[in-house]
Amino acid sequence: MCGIFAYLNYLSPKRREEIIELLIRGLERLEYRGYDSAGIGIDSTTEGVTLVKQTGKVKCLRDKIEAQKDTLDFDRELNIHIGIAHTRWATHGVPSDINSHPQRSDELNEFVVVHNGIITNYKDVKQFLIRKGHKFESDTDTEIIAKLIKHLHTLHPSYSFRELVEQVIQQLEGAFALAFKSKHFPGELVTTRRGSPLLVGIKTKEKLSSDHIPILYSKDSPEKVELQDLEGLPAKEKDSQADHRSHVFDLPNVLARTESTAEFLPLGDDKEVEYFFASDASAIIEHTNRVIYLLDDDVASVDKEGILKIHRLKRSLEDSHAREITTLKMEIQQIMKGNFSSFMQKEIFEQPESVVNTMRGRINFDSETVVLGGIKEHLSEIRRCRRLLLIACGTSYHSTIATRQLLEELTELPVMVDMASDFLDRNTPIFRDDVCFFVSQSGETADTLLALRYCKQRGALIVGITNTVGSSICRESHCGVHINAGPEIGVASTKAYTSQMISLVMFALMISEDRISAQPRRSEIIQGLRKLPEQIKEVLALDSKIQEISKEVFEKMSLLVLGRGYNYATCLEGALKIKEITYMHSEGIMAGELKHGPLALVDKGMPIIMICTRDNVFVKCMNALQQVTAREGRPIVISNKGDQELEKFASNILEVPRTVDCLQGLLTVIPLQLISYHIAVLRGCNVDCPRNLAKSVTVE
Amino acid sequence: MCGIFAYLNYLSPKRREEIIELLIRGLERLEYRGYDSAGIGIDSTTEGVTLVKQTGKVKCLRDKIEAQKDTLDFDRELNIHIGIAHTRWATHGVPSDINSHPQRSDELNEFVVVHNGIITNYKDVKQFLIRKGHKFESDTDTEIIAKLIKHLHTLHPSYSFRELVEQVIQQLEGAFALAFKSKHFPGELVTTRRGSPLLVGIKTKEKLSSDHIPILYSKDSPEKVELQDLEGLPAKEKDSQADHRSHVFDLPNVLARTESTAEFLPLGDDKEVEYFFASDASAIIEHTNRVIYLLDDDVASVDKEGILKIHRLKRSLEDSHAREITTLKMEIQQIMKGNFSSFMQKEIFEQPESVVNTMRGRINFDSETVVLGGIKEHLSEIRRCRRLLLIACGTSYHSTIATRQLLEELTELPVMVDMASDFLDRNTPIFRDDVCFFVSQSGETADTLLALRYCKQRGALIVGITNTVGSSICRESHCGVHINAGPEIGVASTKAYTSQMISLVMFALMISEDRISAQPRRSEIIQGLRKLPEQIKEVLALDSKIQEISKEVFEKMSLLVLGRGYNYATCLEGALKIKEITYMHSEGIMAGELKHGPLALVDKGMPIIMICTRDNVFVKCMNALQQVTAREGRPIVISNKGDQELEKFASNILEVPRTVDCLQGLLTVIPLQLISYHIAVLRGCNVDCPRNLAKSVTVE
Repeated sequence: MCGIFAYLNYLSPKRREEIIELLIRGLERLEYRGYDSAGIGIDSTTEGVTLVKQTGKVKCLRDKIEAQKDTLDFDRELNIHIGIAHTRWATHGVPSDINSHPQRSDELNEFVVVHNGIITNYKDVKQFLIRKGHKFESDTDTEIIAKLIKHLHTLHPSYSFRELVEQVIQQLEGAFALAFKSKHFPGELVTTRRGSPLLVGIKTKEKLSSDHIPILYSKDSPEKVELQDLEGLPAKEKDSQADHRSHVFDLPNVLARTESTAEFLPLGDDKEVEYFFASDASAIIEHTNRVIYLLDDDVASVDKEGILKIHRLKRSLEDSHAREITTLKMEIQQIMKGNFSSFMQKEIFEQPESVVNTMRGRINFDSETVVLGGIKEHLSEIRRCRRLLLIACGTSYHSTIATRQLLEELTELPVMVDMASDFLDRNTPIFRDDVCFFVSQSGETADTLLALRYCKQRGALIVGITNTVGSSICRESHCGVHINAGPEIGVASTKAYTSQMISLVMFALMISEDRISAQPRRSEIIQGLRKLPEQIKEVLALDSKIQEISKEVFEKMSLLVLGRGYNYATCLEGALKIKEITYMHSEGIMAGELKHGPLALVDKGMPIIMICTRDNVFVKCMNALQQVTAREGRPIVISNKGDQELEKFASNILEVPRTVDCLQGLLTVIPLQLISYHIAVLRGCNVDCPRNLAKSVTVE
Repeated sequence: MCGIFAYLNYLSPKRREEIIELLIRGLERLEYRGYDSAGIGIDSTTEGVTLVKQTGKVKCLRDKIEAQKDTLDFDRELNIHIGIAHTRWATHGVPSDINSHPQRSDELNEFVVVHNGIITNYKDVKQFLIRKGHKFESDTDTEIIAKLIKHLHTLHPSYSFRELVEQVIQQLEGAFALAFKSKHFPGELVTTRRGSPLLVGIKTKEKLSSDHIPILYSKDSPEKVELQDLEGLPAKEKDSQADHRSHVFDLPNVLARTESTAEFLPLGDDKEVEYFFASDASAIIEHTNRVIYLLDDDVASVDKEGILKIHRLKRSLEDSHAREITTLKMEIQQIMKGNFSSFMQKEIFEQPESVVNTMRGRINFDSETVVLGGIKEHLSEIRRCRRLLLIACGTSYHSTIATRQLLEELTELPVMVDMASDFLDRNTPIFRDDVCFFVSQSGETADTLLALRYCKQRGALIVGITNTVGSSICRESHCGVHINAGPEIGVASTKAYTSQMISLVMFALMISEDRISAQPRRSEIIQGLRKLPEQIKEVLALDSKIQEISKEVFEKMSLLVLGRGYNYATCLEGALKIKEITYMHSEGIMAGELKHGPLALVDKGMPIIMICTRDNVFVKCMNALQQVTAREGRPIVISNKGDQELEKFASNILEVPRTVDCLQGLLTVIPLQLISYHIAVLRGCNVDCPRNLAKSVTVE
């Protein structure tokens, strides 16, 4: 879950200071992906490559460079230059300067590389390289990549930079997006990906002459080099890795319907060009909106003539033989924080608008019809399926729990929900007549993506629910819903959760459109959705009361969140928010399970939040509330407006407007988002960048 | 989850002291069902009924009676006497003397009652009775029962005691087992049940003349009395209760195949008889092994002639018109503690034997065949089903998670697992070709039982997995497996968990017996089960090491238990054990979800237990372990023997023998059971009777 960024200016002169600033700005945009350390690699002032690396957030790197500005020759103007940069989320090796990227081949920085992902066979390769005399300095899996490319360069000095990278990635197992720079190949940049996302932004003064780049197949490339010493490893080790690999990386079938006719690089007469390579669009959008999404095993290189080429080793019938240059529609201000103290707070308060954006153009509140364009064609297939499976991780997983009951009710199909990682661990049986939903804000969540491929291979219909157009899940689904909540920057997901829920509710409404008996229920829900934005505003008005309540609990060690029925998902999601950003041990507990163990935790001192709204489990919730208060628990109760009956049991009451039972979770989750936010602020935590976490989890 | 006990001696003279001792002993046996307060109701030394009630455990009641022994006239011999007794698990109203049972109709104790269950419409009835001038003294739901029977007696003084009780239960919604005593009906006892368990033990000198008691139908009973004032309630209140009631109480179809021919009470010439009424057999077995299990809405009364009669209001075609007198086979020593400091410790150490008892007569290790007699006849039906559903609560729910993957593998069917309470809340769609498993140690777990009835009503095949012969789940299933782990007294379930898992594994083995491709896998598992008892002994030998480790963590506030794959259930179960008996906030976390939030909790100070055994998710577990150690976490690792690779990451290592992947959870759970036990002892907690909990959860 690191962020990588590379910048190449060709015949577009820039001062060193400008280039460094550009790299740092790119990292700042990507910082939500990880912020354990950061580093850049640029041309040295004399010869070769200079690395600057620093533990901590990008700000620390910026300070370090500022301090070194005399030695970095800020004012030198460069006509052609390649810079690579990285912000790290530690997986192998603690955060430290030496474990920071770029990683290097040797003390002379002959080859340097930045990497997002995890190399699963790094131990084998490392042992091989150690036997060959290479000395390792870091604990990272990435360092083997830099050492390996140097090793291959020594063996085969005639290979081009791109050919060397092609050789390297044939030896790697796991997930990666990589950008390479080398003193042996000045003015050249090679990048590639498998599993981790990577896209290219192109900035030219003239209009591009084509909207496609053709794929070049390396038919004249050298055969794969056999690293024979790798054979000497214990068989078991190798098996478990082979097993690991088998999940990954079938070539996605994306642009099959848009055959390219362009044969050459789509540039006009002016050769001046800038390229931006990044893990996602937020680092590119301020420079250009013309981008190419690379696919697994694409090797994208820029040669000495400033020409971008995309190579693949093998020709595949499924591939489109070209990559489309698409136009990003994201606005730069969309990713700015506005007047809020953090992105998370901003995103919580955006929900009255974001839910409207999710419904816009899809629900007609007057005719009470719902159309999800992406799914429409597959409706009859879905209605005839064996069952619906909803697969996701973290907050997205909670959105599937929140809507499961409604899906069961309106589809009359069996509905299973699964954590993507557990789903994969279990090798769950999948059938051709299953319909599988994959929910992920980023659309790049590694476990969810692997589960998607697992189900696709077995012939199931794949439906993606993401917030990111062009993401892997988006591209590899048969159909799907873009939740359209706008970019979410805070690591703790808030507005994406409510929009994911609404998307799944809209699906349930659409699939039941033909059932006469379901019409009153559909009508009730659609009118509930219509009122939702106003009701969310009412809940947000509780903010200052919630801030006061947070003051009473922020110093506690634990916090239980109890509820059941439609609000069970709210409990899980609320507890996750509190865990993520306050580091307080918080747990969401099904109120019906209280008596089977968790009730033992309850006493006068244990802070408890209970959700008790007027739905068909209200009486049961009241039973649970009585059990808690009989043990002297004094919970904070989230209830419907005007429910005085609850007051005598509660230490505090947070009243949310009443809505249809299946939508109530959209309103009850917001006080919990706000509580987590206020507790985090009171505890002095960094709300947007909680320790140890990153926004988009692109490794297993 | 209270325990009720009643004792009636007819022409069998006993001293008051003996009678009181007998009642107290009965309560002690039932104490695992609840121990918030206790009380007894006996004949007064002058006239009417005397109540003695005391907050706290039964021991406190015993002390209070000892202190009052002069006023209680211990030496008076009574020829006929009725005593009722109760040990309470608080649901409505805090534990206190006034909320203790027996509850009474008025200050003169005209009618007194003991109750296990929850009356859901108690508020309506209470309002009605208040309007009628009754004064309430407690916060319990039970008090309305005592007041209501007095109210009806005043209105209809000609009704018999049994007719009054029949009138009362027609007004009640919810679950109950009740025993009534009244100064107006000396020498008579009336009991009844709906939802909560109740059985009758019969002790005579002569052999009983029949093994059945016929049902008497109250055709000449008065019509249901209408409490008209109940109409004045808000419609919504009534709806939600009506909804609640609709789950419950379809009449179970039990003895349909054993038509009774006996017409009269099965007693010989000698009229001397003693009756024991109790919530379960453990309170009866030391007196007699001849018992009758009452069914929902049976009203069992003993009249002035010492005759036991069982009445029902309505004749049902499905009922057998008789109740069988069965012979209990439980040994009294089975429920004694032995040399261990607590039942829980004893039960943990019994597991090498209890798993053998579960497999005995079912697995032939030489021919590698598995036969579960109860399920055999339904095998072909199960193989053709749409899907398997496994439904349970608490620890039993974890046993279904632990075996889900194997069931998916060997049955090749979709397998869903559900918490019973959530399953009911969701009104989950059930189809006639579904097969539903219900797992419950006691066989009386209210939510599980309600879910069973819900599924049965919809035509699914019902399979019960319980540890209690004659329990409700046992009786209402179409077929099932008795796990045969022996009685489990410790509130925290241990040996039942391992036996439940093995029962489900045996089912998976049996259903796949006909598949040639599954034979190597079956063989591997069967041989794994053969070695299991010895391997459990090896794990139990870690006890003193685990005690040392417990000393390092017992003062902490939180504890995370991490793992994935087959060991995910172990994490949930281990964390539940720790929660239940140590009151430490412990949570089981799927290691694959770490990066989606919980990793934020990890730092130097957070105690963590990780399970990392050599199965197909070992590499992924190692990734998680590295992520934890990269954040300075120093987990206690449960690993396979000789796995040195893990040592450098762990603060402590607990090595368990390696077995087949799907059985590994049977070995990894035991160190967690022991850790919870030792932490509880170190923290000074009552291991067998954790606060707020009870063994068998017979209310929703």
